[in-house]
This record gives sequence, C-alpha cells and structure tokens, in this order.
Amino acid sequence: MNKIAITTGDPNGIGAEITIKALNKLRLPQESIVILSNKKILDFYGKLDTDYELIEIPFEADITPGKITADCGEFSYKSLLKAIEIKPDGLVTAPIAKNALYMAGHKFNGHTEILQQFLAHDGQKAEMLFVAKDFRVLLLTRHCALKDIVLTKECVVEKVLKLQEFFNNKLGIIHPKFALCGLNPHSGEDGILGSEELEILNPAVKALRTKGINITYPLPADTLFIDAAKNYYSDKKLPYDCYIANYHDQGLIPIKTVAGDDTVNMTIGLDIIRTSPGHGTAFDIAGKNIAREDDMIAAINAVLKFV
Amino acid sequence: MNKIAITTGDPNGIGAEITIKALNKLRLPQESIVILSNKKILDFYGKLDTDYELIEIPFEADITPGKITADCGEFSYKSLLKAIEIKPDGLVTAPIAKNALYMAGHKFNGHTEILQQFLAHDGQKAEMLFVAKDFRVLLLTRHCALKDIVLTKECVVEKVLKLQEFFNNKLGIIHPKFALCGLNPHSGEDGILGSEELEILNPAVKALRTKGINITYPLPADTLFIDAAKNYYSDKKLPYDCYIANYHDQGLIPIKTVAGDDTVNMTIGLDIIRTSPGHGTAFDIAGKNIAREDDMIAAINAVLKFV
Repeated sequence: MNKIAITTGDPNGIGAEITIKALNKLRLPQESIVILSNKKILDFYGKLDTDYELIEIPFEADITPGKITADCGEFSYKSLLKAIEIKPDGLVTAPIAKNALYMAGHKFNGHTEILQQFLAHDGQKAEMLFVAKDFRVLLLTRHCALKDIVLTKECVVEKVLKLQEFFNNKLGIIHPKFALCGLNPHSGEDGILGSEELEILNPAVKALRTKGINITYPLPADTLFIDAAKNYYSDKKLPYDCYIANYHDQGLIPIKTVAGDDTVNMTIGLDIIRTSPGHGTAFDIAGKNIAREDDMIAAINAVLKFV
Repeated sequence: MNKIAITTGDPNGIGAEITIKALNKLRLPQESIVILSNKKILDFYGKLDTDYELIEIPFEADITPGKITADCGEFSYKSLLKAIEIKPDGLVTAPIAKNALYMAGHKFNGHTEILQQFLAHDGQKAEMLFVAKDFRVLLLTRHCALKDIVLTKECVVEKVLKLQEFFNNKLGIIHPKFALCGLNPHSGEDGILGSEELEILNPAVKALRTKGINITYPLPADTLFIDAAKNYYSDKKLPYDCYIANYHDQGLIPIKTVAGDDTVNMTIGLDIIRTSPGHGTAFDIAGKNIAREDDMIAAINAVLKFV
C-alpha cells in the first residue's frame, strides 16, 4: 500500500491539533499513514484513535501555543527534511511559520522553497498550485513583497509548460484550457497601466501557443473569476481548467474567497506531490482546541488522489 | 424633483445600449433623468421608451462599434464636463475607454480623475468605492501599474477619514467597522515579505484609532474576504462595513468575483455622488445588441439612494 507522510508543522501552531482531528475523522488504514512529529507535541494537542507509525523529530523546548520561537522553526524544518528523506508517495504538511524558520537560521519562505532545495533534480522546479474541487490556480511568483515581483517571458513559459505536464501526466487532462491574468489593472490597458502585458506576458503566450498550449492572452483579473465563482457554486465545470495568477494575492484572493476552507495548497513539479491546508499556523487560536480540521481533511483527500 | 444625469460613455462601446435598456426597464419618471449624449448615437443603439431630456454633445464621426478613436475620447470627455457643469443631484456614467481619452489628448485615467480635476474644491478628494448591496470596498490607489503603487501614512489616514465622513453623513452609519488589507502577501509577515505594513499601514491605523476610527490593523487579504463572501451569499450582515484595499485588483477581485454584475463603482468625497457599472466599454460585443444592462441598472439604483 502507498504511504502518505504527514508533518504536524509548527509545534506552537494548530498543526498537530488539526492533524489529529483530521485523521480521527478520516479513519484511514493504519498502514497508509506515517506521521513525522513528536509524541510530546501530539499528546499536548489531542489523541489519535489509530496507532499510526510515528517518526520522532526531536523537540526539547516547552510547547507554548502562539509563541514564535527558533526551536519551533528548527522542528518544522527538521520534520520536513525527514519527510523528504523517507520518500513517501505523497506528503501533507501542516502549517509552519516563516518567521520561526528565519529565527532558526533557515531562510526559506515556506515549504515549497525547502522542497525545491532538497527534492528537485534534473532541472525540476517546484510550483505552487491551489486547488478546490476543479477550481485551480497556479502562482507565477510566490512569497515575495509586492514591489519585488519579477516576471520574465522565460519563467512564464517554463512554469506553464510544467503545468501542462502536470495536467497531462497526473490529472489525465490532455488538452487543458488555461486562463492567464494580466499583471496590472485592466491587464495594463494596452500599456497605459503598465507594460508587462505587452513586453512579457503576450510574448510568453505567443511562445506557448506555438507549442500547442491552450492559453488565453492576459485577461483583466478583476472580472476573470466571476464565472469561475458562479460555476463553482453551482457545481458546473469551470470555464478554464486552471487560472494562472502573477502573484500571491491575485491568485489566492479569488480561490479562497470562493472556496474558503476547501482550498488546498499543492506543490507540483517534483517527484512527490505535496499538499497542505490553505491557512497558516493560526497562532491566535493555537492550543484552544477550537481549530477546524476541514482544510487538513481537504489537503489529505487531495493527495490521496495521486497515491 | 431631484435629477440624475446620465452620460452614455464611449460611442463605440456598449454605453448607449445599456443606458437605453436600463432606462426602459427601470421606467423612472420623465423629469428625474437628463441624458448627456447625442441623438445619432442613441438612435444607433436602440430606442428609449420615455422621452427624457437630452443634452446634445457634438459627435460628427461615424459610429463604428469596437473601434478606439480620438473622436470617441473627445465625446466621452465633453459629455462628462457638461454633466459636471449642469450640477445634477447624482451622476451615472456609462463606460469610457482610457486609450480613447488619451488619443484625444486627455491624459486622465478615468472618470474619477476628471471629476477630481473639475469638481473638487476646498481640498476635496475623489475616492473610489465599490459597492454591491452592503459589500463595500475602498481603493487606496486606483488605476496605476502594479509597480507604481505608492502608499504613505498620510494618504491612508486622509482617505479613511473621508470614508468615515461618507459613512456618517451619506449612509447614516455613525460607527462603521473598517477592515484594512495588508499590501503584501500574508500582510508582510512581520516584515519578511515587505515592510509597508510596519512602516506605513500600522502607523496609519494607530493614528486613525486615536481619532476614534474603528479599523483593523492590516489583515492578510487572501483570507479576509472569505466571511464577506459567505455572508453576502446568505444575505447576512458582513463582518465589516467597508474593506480597504491597497490597490485595484486587491479590492476589485474579491467584490467582483463575489457580486459579479451587481458591483457598482461609486465616486465619493465630492459634492456629486457618481456611480457607474463595474465593467468597461466591452468593445468586443459593442453594437451587437447582446450587452446586459444589469450593471447599469445597479449603478442607477445605487445613486437613486442618495438623491
């Protein structure tokens, strides 16, 4: 049987709590799951009904829900590295805190960057896809300040080709339809509100179309998702198989606003498909036993499709 | 009786068509409406059931639906100036094309900027508010390229104070609750993903709170609108009376994705309240008699509340 590895994320966040709640609700076979965490952390946040395999990651510090610490950053980091080492068929990661990672000296902006660093080979690139049922959003740039967004024709082409590969090989969708967001308001309005559409995005689309990719020229992002939302709510097929956003909030605002807790963060482009709930560590409610496990369940269910 | 002025926007867009369709459906009293347009344009796109007052704006050129021309830009501009001149109690503007305006030598990025230029007095500032039922979004910056977004503490404070004034004086909401979006992903994560939250937005919120304004510290925009969407769809009161977005797509994506055609663009902060449909000139379907008038109806209804 194929195995899914689960990391419980930042020990002071809601990760362990939602992992326990999700697994208790899902009741997956014992041999299908391996948890990378620490007994002390699991016991602090709840009790698993099933005796899943546990790979212990050291954690000597106290658990203080809500607190950002270097110890927690180190634990988050080590858990993920161990998960990579054991080569699971799929990986689900509970949320970590970037500032805790930083405090521990690990200058990564998130799981995706760490996976890229340690898992990629032969020119592979990790890409962030957000998924809720058939509503899918690819990000062209990820966790960076708004003013630091940099796009190039080459990177757009490369990422969309990877996306096509994922659709062909993993989803079995041979001719996916992609919609590309303009970077600027109104997609730049012919250069009046920014030149990236003319100089970067249009040439990228042209190159992709010559390779047979079905992708739109950049469309105004404020109206692009209206039909996606309507169809999502009425359980109809969405107009596009994937929406391609230029930056974090441009892609995440529409899918999360529409799909809420059902939004799953998926890393594609590497050998292991990894998912995580769409939310963060939720330090404000950590340790109060009020975190909802829906997102974690969605994340586990999403990865189950591929293993 | 109070009068609403309506401009039909770009002669080669869908403006005249949706104006005619909307007015024929709304059947407002004859004396309540004055149209700023041109008989040739109105006759080209349809027929009004009611004989509303028409102020003629010269238009000698041919009507060629879908074409961007300097003549159309000039007409759009002159119509709006005339509307300002007659000082209506409310103003509804059909869409214009910025590139047509530019071709005619009028370097304005839209209606709001023209209204600001010719209507503001005594330090007034035009602000863009988007409204769908009780879902409201204020933009801190408007039509500019993503890389040109500039925020200052002073401008944020000033705009939010104007917003408070509008809520108090025009909507009769004395203690509105405002939610502020972070500029960067995850609201900057304590400076890791951008410094504007720490350097500009937080200090602005602090200053506003000392003035008694009920406003949140910057919140991650990707999750902020989840509850707004849920409540909007289930006809419940939204968690906040207004959401404050840092830039165009950050505010427009959520409200349009959720409210679609019901999203109205409203200019506040000047003597005349102006609304317009949330969409553009829709050149691709102009002259085909297939444009939907719902947005225009929403825009007219929205301004009717204030006159």
